[in-house]
Amino acid sequence: MDKRDKYGVLIDIGRRRGLFWPSYEIYGGVAGLYDYGHVGVAIKRSLMENWVKYFVDRRDGVIVELESPIITPRIVLQASGHEENFTDPITECTKCGRVFRADHLVEEQTGIHAEGMSMDQLWEVMKKHGVKCPVCGGELTKPKPALLLFKTEIGPYKGSPGYLRPETAQGMFVSFKQVLNTARNKLPLGIAQIGKVGRNEISPRQGLMRLREFTIMEIEFFFDPDKADEEVRKYLTKEILEYKVNVLTGVDKKKGVEEAKPYTIKELIDKRIVTSPWMAYWMAIGNKYLESLGIPSQKIRFDEKLPEEKAHYSLQTFDQEVHTEKYGWVEVAGYSYRTTYDLGRHMKYSGADLTVFRRYSEPRIVEKIKVYPNPSRIREIAGKDLSIVMKNLSKIPSEELVEKLEMQGYVEVEGYKLGKDAFYIKKVREKIHGEKFIPHVVEPSFGLERIFYVVLENSLVFEEDRTYLRLDKKLAPYHVAVYPLVTGSTGKPSMIAEKARLLARALRIAGLRVFYDEEGSIGRRYMRGDEIGIPYAVTVDYQTLEDSTVTIRDRDTRKQERVKIIELYGRLLELLGLAHDWKDIIQRYSLI
Amino acid sequence: MDKRDKYGVLIDIGRRRGLFWPSYEIYGGVAGLYDYGHVGVAIKRSLMENWVKYFVDRRDGVIVELESPIITPRIVLQASGHEENFTDPITECTKCGRVFRADHLVEEQTGIHAEGMSMDQLWEVMKKHGVKCPVCGGELTKPKPALLLFKTEIGPYKGSPGYLRPETAQGMFVSFKQVLNTARNKLPLGIAQIGKVGRNEISPRQGLMRLREFTIMEIEFFFDPDKADEEVRKYLTKEILEYKVNVLTGVDKKKGVEEAKPYTIKELIDKRIVTSPWMAYWMAIGNKYLESLGIPSQKIRFDEKLPEEKAHYSLQTFDQEVHTEKYGWVEVAGYSYRTTYDLGRHMKYSGADLTVFRRYSEPRIVEKIKVYPNPSRIREIAGKDLSIVMKNLSKIPSEELVEKLEMQGYVEVEGYKLGKDAFYIKKVREKIHGEKFIPHVVEPSFGLERIFYVVLENSLVFEEDRTYLRLDKKLAPYHVAVYPLVTGSTGKPSMIAEKARLLARALRIAGLRVFYDEEGSIGRRYMRGDEIGIPYAVTVDYQTLEDSTVTIRDRDTRKQERVKIIELYGRLLELLGLAHDWKDIIQRYSLI
Repeated sequence: MDKRDKYGVLIDIGRRRGLFWPSYEIYGGVAGLYDYGHVGVAIKRSLMENWVKYFVDRRDGVIVELESPIITPRIVLQASGHEENFTDPITECTKCGRVFRADHLVEEQTGIHAEGMSMDQLWEVMKKHGVKCPVCGGELTKPKPALLLFKTEIGPYKGSPGYLRPETAQGMFVSFKQVLNTARNKLPLGIAQIGKVGRNEISPRQGLMRLREFTIMEIEFFFDPDKADEEVRKYLTKEILEYKVNVLTGVDKKKGVEEAKPYTIKELIDKRIVTSPWMAYWMAIGNKYLESLGIPSQKIRFDEKLPEEKAHYSLQTFDQEVHTEKYGWVEVAGYSYRTTYDLGRHMKYSGADLTVFRRYSEPRIVEKIKVYPNPSRIREIAGKDLSIVMKNLSKIPSEELVEKLEMQGYVEVEGYKLGKDAFYIKKVREKIHGEKFIPHVVEPSFGLERIFYVVLENSLVFEEDRTYLRLDKKLAPYHVAVYPLVTGSTGKPSMIAEKARLLARALRIAGLRVFYDEEGSIGRRYMRGDEIGIPYAVTVDYQTLEDSTVTIRDRDTRKQERVKIIELYGRLLELLGLAHDWKDIIQRYSLI
Repeated sequence: MDKRDKYGVLIDIGRRRGLFWPSYEIYGGVAGLYDYGHVGVAIKRSLMENWVKYFVDRRDGVIVELESPIITPRIVLQASGHEENFTDPITECTKCGRVFRADHLVEEQTGIHAEGMSMDQLWEVMKKHGVKCPVCGGELTKPKPALLLFKTEIGPYKGSPGYLRPETAQGMFVSFKQVLNTARNKLPLGIAQIGKVGRNEISPRQGLMRLREFTIMEIEFFFDPDKADEEVRKYLTKEILEYKVNVLTGVDKKKGVEEAKPYTIKELIDKRIVTSPWMAYWMAIGNKYLESLGIPSQKIRFDEKLPEEKAHYSLQTFDQEVHTEKYGWVEVAGYSYRTTYDLGRHMKYSGADLTVFRRYSEPRIVEKIKVYPNPSRIREIAGKDLSIVMKNLSKIPSEELVEKLEMQGYVEVEGYKLGKDAFYIKKVREKIHGEKFIPHVVEPSFGLERIFYVVLENSLVFEEDRTYLRLDKKLAPYHVAVYPLVTGSTGKPSMIAEKARLLARALRIAGLRVFYDEEGSIGRRYMRGDEIGIPYAVTVDYQTLEDSTVTIRDRDTRKQERVKIIELYGRLLELLGLAHDWKDIIQRYSLI
């Protein structure tokens, strides 16, 4: 097996072939910010398109998309708890002034697991083990929490603070009712969003793994907790129930177990390893998704977060991790059971009603106290103001009248105090058709750039004479490369190059993403195409001039086949998996 | 003609059907920020995909994409001149404290065109005409410039200020050499980017027309100014040269002309109305692009900006405007000739070499002065330090030695002053193969959300019994709607609904975006589909159960045709223009 460092090779290909490189390099760079070149943009776009197909288009209308702003007024992230909780502990060197993540320093210098420790706990460990500045050896200050939100001001006034969103989720919570009303009008409802977020990391040093600006692809899945078991059943097909995922449970972690174990989705639900069956469902879908990108199942696991590792909004969280050569297990997605936390907080902070009405299967009879004004007694009190008092009373809901009479013994209207004797008080039995409740939320959330990286690492293949990306065809930056065998300015070489250029253009017109290259030997061009994962290469050669045929070369097997130009497009669609066999599809769905 | 207010109808459809609505409404909203619902996201995505197809994929590899960060270190926007120039004049009410754009207030209250006026000029007019606070009538302060950049801090240190980018362009300039090296390695080269930007507008009140966060789709097109006339010729086909666009020239504007006049691209170049032929080329491509979205040519014009209306970086700018009912002429794109401004400034601020090498067609002979150290004279001066002095001298480029000898009469090395006599000075003739130069840049830049709005307005059709969006098929949020004629829980209605659901799923599997709806009468469902611009509706009815046929209804004509399910997919691809006729394409390109 080739022992080359895959990370190093990818960094090199990334820069040399236009996948990714650190931003603002002419100014010395800014940690945690990356550029993506034309190949990187194409692969990232393929990943996003594929995510939408997988998580939105194929979900029969249950998931709908939303785009909400990156710029977020402060109140939203106060309500969400981020302003209070979205912090990391930092410590500053008293000698050189550098700032570090205190928990990372502790782990590096003492080996003690420090995630989730309080400032005091960290300080204790730092003092006990003599943790020092890793750069100059200076003394460090007591850790304090640093807010990871990028702060700004909205508008020209001072005093309208805002933040860049650290997750797209709050957009879905804040606009939940608007989306519910326009999109599906019933639960369950998933709201999906792909968008940029900002996290002002302390000192990101892990390339694409820890970015200050990145893309989240996430779903807030709203459901009725009382109906979860019943509603999820339709989604839990036999195939899903028997599907296996690797899980490192919190219980096992506490016992010191470090290896994940395989569980079927059915086991996760029946053994109550997951606190909502919808979590188990989305974990299955998310696992199948990563497998569909070419990540082998044994390299994927779910790591249940312990109470001190979890975000403040979550009842239960599983990180979905992929094993990488450079960083070991890397989180590429998180599955959190956010319950009613976010909607509840936004109701409190905004005063808006974000509840949903749950209709009972049968109406229920409840006993209520109702009060009605007694006009003759009120006339005694209010005299000629009777009619205005009656009119104002009619505007006050019966519940409020009951409450006031109970709490303070009277209701005041137009300056008149109306005691209990001014009302008829009756117990009534009412038919109730349903009730309001705050939906629960399960959130599967994916980090695009991390998935981008793990897909690249998993695609990278070293062979004796070449290094190439065995990218899944649907993720490739280009569908096909077109190469003239030879190029020149006169004679047959020039005719071959011209034909190749026209063929590239024709394939583009027909909707394919085409890479065209005429520089260097054909062997080197094949290698260059392989290196960025183009699955097929079409070569125009001398024979093309005679019989209008070209060759198609397969990136993985390097085998070639010769086809007529007129059949080329159909054959490419077939090879690329873009030719949908409608007859086959409708047979599967018994539509014929 | 229907006199309903299209803007009002679109706002209503936007909110009701999930296209767009103001963000953060439960918190009272934030001016200039909008949400896009599932239909809006789908249309915006279609617009972006289409833009990439049009401006990138179809340009034979000359245009490549880049994704660079939104978060930008301060130095970049100092170099670009934005920190100094990207401001609007604001004035504050001394009574109520509200802040306004001074130029807008002047225009509203005096009718005087105030764009580009200095703070002093605005203040003069305000005093002379008694401009007051439009809300409370209070006195206003002297205008001062307000920076339109969203400011933030990068990282936990104070003193690392950053901004949200106000344009994607700076990412292309800063990474120009990196992209050039990885992508095309020659000029002309266009770098395209679609991405979010932030502009901290003073008090945006124009809905989707003036946003604080929006999406830019722009190209920085780098070229060699000496070869522009020659290189552009390949792109200026007869069809392009004869193509007409409406232009309101700066010369005409100064004369008081308000109507644009039609010019062919050839005229724009020959009459030197545009300062670079590449500008004219991109204006043609951009005009064809808007036409391809369904905007009629007579509703599009180019408005040449006068010196006081232009951005600081531009030698010449044309706004591309579309006429709207609500706002009149609205800028949807800008075409600026940025020359060497940005690259030159970044060279100065970063010290990086952003030049490109221009190879001469034939080598040129130039005369140069060269100096060589005279060791025997230097030994007299430096004694035993001769070898270290000689070694250090060898590190100094000949040009620098010449310059120092000419300017100060000596060169100082290791403390020894070496005069002219310590060197042999010779005139030599050198063969030069080329020279370095800073590429020029033309920038076509499109505002996605404004195009989104003008496309919607232009698609909105009022008919007696319905209001619908005659969206171009390639921009529609869904390819097709599927409706069961009737629904029910038993018998044939239930069979019909089940078949319709399966058909919707089958079409999704085959790659189409499908809208499924079974609520309400079939007539109302047709109307609902029409209202969001779905071009075709497939209806499953009683006859489907008998002979496996369905109807396809055309949104615009409302005509229906009946097809067999097995032929449905092919027929839809054909109707949607998604079935590429490969034979026809290769015949056009003489590949057969």
